[in-house]
Amino acid sequence: MNPQQLWDRYKTHFCAVPSLGLSLDISRMNFDDGFFASMAPAMGKAYRAMDALEAGAIANPDEKRMVGHYWLRAPRLAPEPAITKEIEGTVAAIRDFAAKVHSGAVKPEKAPKFTRLLSVGIGGSALGPEFVADALGEPGKDALVAHFVDNTDPDGIARDLEKLGGPLDETITIVMSKSGSTPETRNGMLVVAEAYRKAGLDFAKHAVAVTGVGSKLDQQVQKEGWLARFPMWDWVGGRTSELSAVGLTPGFLQGLDMEAMLEGAAAMDVATRVHDTPKNPAALLALMWHAATDGKGLKDMVVLPYKDRLLLFSRYLQQLVMESLGKQLDLDGNRVDQGISVYGNKGSTDQHAYVQQLRDGVNNFFLTFIRVLEDGGTGLEVEPGVTAGDYLHGFLLGTRSALFANDRHSVTITVPRVDARTIGALIALFERAVGFYATLVNINAYHQPGVEAGKKAAAEVLTLQAKVVGALSSSPQTAEAIAAAIGQPDDAETTYLILQHLAANGRIQGHPASDPASATFAAK
Amino acid sequence: MNPQQLWDRYKTHFCAVPSLGLSLDISRMNFDDGFFASMAPAMGKAYRAMDALEAGAIANPDEKRMVGHYWLRAPRLAPEPAITKEIEGTVAAIRDFAAKVHSGAVKPEKAPKFTRLLSVGIGGSALGPEFVADALGEPGKDALVAHFVDNTDPDGIARDLEKLGGPLDETITIVMSKSGSTPETRNGMLVVAEAYRKAGLDFAKHAVAVTGVGSKLDQQVQKEGWLARFPMWDWVGGRTSELSAVGLTPGFLQGLDMEAMLEGAAAMDVATRVHDTPKNPAALLALMWHAATDGKGLKDMVVLPYKDRLLLFSRYLQQLVMESLGKQLDLDGNRVDQGISVYGNKGSTDQHAYVQQLRDGVNNFFLTFIRVLEDGGTGLEVEPGVTAGDYLHGFLLGTRSALFANDRHSVTITVPRVDARTIGALIALFERAVGFYATLVNINAYHQPGVEAGKKAAAEVLTLQAKVVGALSSSPQTAEAIAAAIGQPDDAETTYLILQHLAANGRIQGHPASDPASATFAAK
Repeated sequence: MNPQQLWDRYKTHFCAVPSLGLSLDISRMNFDDGFFASMAPAMGKAYRAMDALEAGAIANPDEKRMVGHYWLRAPRLAPEPAITKEIEGTVAAIRDFAAKVHSGAVKPEKAPKFTRLLSVGIGGSALGPEFVADALGEPGKDALVAHFVDNTDPDGIARDLEKLGGPLDETITIVMSKSGSTPETRNGMLVVAEAYRKAGLDFAKHAVAVTGVGSKLDQQVQKEGWLARFPMWDWVGGRTSELSAVGLTPGFLQGLDMEAMLEGAAAMDVATRVHDTPKNPAALLALMWHAATDGKGLKDMVVLPYKDRLLLFSRYLQQLVMESLGKQLDLDGNRVDQGISVYGNKGSTDQHAYVQQLRDGVNNFFLTFIRVLEDGGTGLEVEPGVTAGDYLHGFLLGTRSALFANDRHSVTITVPRVDARTIGALIALFERAVGFYATLVNINAYHQPGVEAGKKAAAEVLTLQAKVVGALSSSPQTAEAIAAAIGQPDDAETTYLILQHLAANGRIQGHPASDPASATFAAK
Repeated sequence: MNPQQLWDRYKTHFCAVPSLGLSLDISRMNFDDGFFASMAPAMGKAYRAMDALEAGAIANPDEKRMVGHYWLRAPRLAPEPAITKEIEGTVAAIRDFAAKVHSGAVKPEKAPKFTRLLSVGIGGSALGPEFVADALGEPGKDALVAHFVDNTDPDGIARDLEKLGGPLDETITIVMSKSGSTPETRNGMLVVAEAYRKAGLDFAKHAVAVTGVGSKLDQQVQKEGWLARFPMWDWVGGRTSELSAVGLTPGFLQGLDMEAMLEGAAAMDVATRVHDTPKNPAALLALMWHAATDGKGLKDMVVLPYKDRLLLFSRYLQQLVMESLGKQLDLDGNRVDQGISVYGNKGSTDQHAYVQQLRDGVNNFFLTFIRVLEDGGTGLEVEPGVTAGDYLHGFLLGTRSALFANDRHSVTITVPRVDARTIGALIALFERAVGFYATLVNINAYHQPGVEAGKKAAAEVLTLQAKVVGALSSSPQTAEAIAAAIGQPDDAETTYLILQHLAANGRIQGHPASDPASATFAAK
C-alpha cells in the first residue's frame, strides 16, 4: 500500500468521538474491502446482545446474573428503580465519606487526620484501582497517598507497609472482596490488622470495607464497627468493577475526580451504543481483534501507550480481555479454547526492550498504540524547536511505520490527554469491545469457570500440609515415607515440596540431600 | 501421566545447583524419552559456540564484537589481561565511589549528603537496574533511595522528579548511555539538568555518567567535570549489562550487595558451563524452550514468580529474551522470523487476572514458575498452622497442577530466597539459556538490527516536523496543502498527525474538523 492509499484508508475509516476528543485509527490493520459487510450479521447479533444486556437480561447465563457495569455511569438506564437508587446513593455516599476524611470530620483513632490509604484486594479489586491511582495520581499533591496490597506474599505485604513511609495511625485501610473469603485479601487484611495492633491501634477505627451485603466480611465489619462499608453487587463482575465502589472508594479518597471518570465512561457508552459500526469505536475494535486473530486468538494483543501514566493499562487489560475471552466452551457447549493474550508496558521504553522481535521476529501479534496529544511536563527544547514530547510522538509514529513496513499491523487510539475523563472513556471502550467480541465468537464473557480448579488444588495442598505436619515425628523420614504414612502415596511430590517449604522457613527440620527422594524431614 | 509417573519424572529430571540452593524442575514439560538424544548434536554445537564466546571469539559477527558479559563476574576468564584489569578496576572504582557517597566524602554542592539517586537510562540501562532496585531494595533502609527516568515523556519525567519526594540538592543523578546519543536518555538528562538549574544547582556537581570511553556523553562529562564516569564496553551488550557498571553503579549507590550478585552469577556460570546437559540448568531451559515452541517461537513464555520482589523480572526478561531471539534472519541469511514472546507479572496476583485464559483458553504458551522457599515478612498464622506464605506456596502448586491437568506445561525454578546472590544467579541462568537457544536455532543473539528502522523513521518524523512548522503561515491550511507545499504530498498523514500534536500543545493554531482532511492549521 503506498502512502497515498494509506492516507485515503486513514480518512475513510477514521472514527472519532467528538465528545471525548478521542479517535480510533484502524487503517493499519489487515482487512479487505468486504470485511465489514461479511461481519455485519455477526455484528448485528452483538449489538442486539449488548442491548439486551444493558436492558437487564441474564447476560451471564452460567451464574444466572445480570451484567450491569454500564449502569454504573448511567444509573437511569438500570432496569429497576431500586438499582438506580442504589448506584446513585453509593456514589454519593462514597463521595461524602471521602470529603469527611479529607476535612478531618472522619479521623483516625489517635492522629488528627488520615494522610494515606492502603487498599487490600486482588484481581478486579486491585488492577483497576492500581492503574487509576498511578494514571491520575500527583505525587505530593494527592489528598491521600495511595498504596496497595495485592497478594498473599508476607514479605511483599511487609514491604507494602514499609512503603507507606509513615505511621499507620494516619492510614485508612480499604478491604475489598465481594465474598469476603478471597484468601489473598483475607490474608492481607489479617497481616495488616496485625500491624495496626502492634502499633497499638484499633484496626476497625481505620478500616473501610467494599464487599457484598451480608458477606462474611460484611458481618465482621458490622460486628467490629468499621468506619464505613460500601456495597459490591452481584451484577457487577470483578474485572468490570472499576466504576463501582471498588474503584470509587480508593479513587475518591485519593482525591481523584471520579465524577469525571464516570462522565467519561458514560460519554463513551453513548458513542459505543450506536448500531452504526463505522462510527462505533468499540465495534471497530472488536472487529479488528477478530480480523487480527481470525476470531481464534491466533495473535497476541500488544498494548503500547506512549505515556508513562498509562504503564499499568495493559495489566488492567490483561484481566479484562483474557479473563473475559479465555474460554474453553462456547455458549452452545462446543470446545473452542478461545482467548487473546495481552501484554505491553509503555512506549518508547518498550522499543528498547522488544521492538526488535516485533519488527523482525515471530509475527504473532497485533499492536494497540495509545497516542496522547498533550505532552505535559516541561516544554524544554532538547534541540531547536523540538521537545522531549516531540520525540515521544515521533517514536510512536516511526515505530508504527517501521512495523507496518514489515507487515506488522496496529490500531491507534488517540486521546487528548490522560485525565479522569479519558481514563473512564478508555475503560468503557475496552469493556464494550470485549462484550462485542464475546458475541462475535459466541462465548460468555462474564464468568470465569477456569479459576476454580486452581483454587481447589491449592486448598488440597493446604489440607495435605496439615496432614503432613501431623505425620512428622522426631525421627527423619523421606517425603515418600510420609506420603505413604498418611495414606496418600500418590502425593509424594507435593508432600516433598510442602516439606521443603516448611523446612526453609524453620518450621520443621529438613535434611537436604542431593536428590529429593533422599531428603528427610522431622518435627522441630 | 499418573501422579506416581510424574513423581518419577520429577526425580529423574531434577537438576540442582547446590552452591546456590537453586533447582530446576522440567517434569511438567512435554518432551518424550528420545528428546535429549535427538537434541544432543545441536546442544553440543551450542556448548562449543558458548565456549568459543567465553574464550573471546567474535560471537556477534554482524557488529564484529566479542561478547563478554560472562567475564564481568569472572574477570580472570577474560581473553586479555587488559580486560581482566579493567573489569576488576571498574568494580573497585564503583564500590569505592559509592562508599564515599555513603560516608559523605563525596557530597553534593549545597547539602551535607546525598540521600537519593536518580538513574536516567532506557532499555538495558533501565530494565536491569529497575528490576534489581525493586527486588533487593528495602524501603526506609536503603543507603540511597533509588528512582528512575526511563522514557522521553515530559510528564513522566516531571512525575519522576516529584516522586523523589525531596529536594534535588540531595539527589545524585546517573546518566547511562553507551553512545551518549540515545535520544530518550539524552532528553531525560536535559530535562533533569534543567530541574537542577531551576533549583539553583550545578548539575555537574550531582552527576555521574556510565558511558563508552570517548562517547559524546563522555566528552561532556570531562568538559563539565562531573562527579565520576564509569565505562561501558563494546563487548557488553545493553541487555546483558546488569553486572557491568550499568547495574553496579546504581546498585552499589543504593547500598545493595552487588558483590554477592556478582558471586551468584559466577556460581551459576560455573554450573552452566558444564557440557553435561542433565546437570546444566541453562541447557535444560534452552532445550525446554525449544521443545515448547518447536524451535520456532510457536508458544509464548509466561513468567510467573510467586514473590512480589520479582515483579519486574519478566519485564527484564522481555528484553533479554525477545531482543536476543527475535530475529528475521539466521546466521546463514535464511529468513526465519524467530523469537519467543515473554510476559507475566507475579503470582498469585496474576491468577486473578488471566489464569482463566491460561487454563481454559487458547493454549499458546508455556509457563515458567519461580518458587521462592523463604517467605519473609510476618509469620502470622492466618488459620491454625497456616501462614500467608503457605497460601502463596499452595497457590503456586495448585495452579501449576490445575494447568497441567489441562495440558498446559511449565518449568519451575526453585530458589531459597530473593537476595543479591539469587538475583545474580537468575540473571546468569537466563543469559546463558538465551545464548544456548540462539545456537539451537542458528541465530545471532547479540545484535538488534530491527530497531534501526524505527529510529530512522522517528528521525524522519522530526525532520518533517521542522519543515511543516516552517511552512505554516497565518492563514489556516489543511495538512494535505502543507504536505504539498513542502513537496512531500505522500506525507499528508504524518503531516496531519504532527500538526495535531503541535496544536494540542498550544505551539501552533489548530482548527479541528469532523474529518482529518478538513482540519486546518496556522502559525501562532
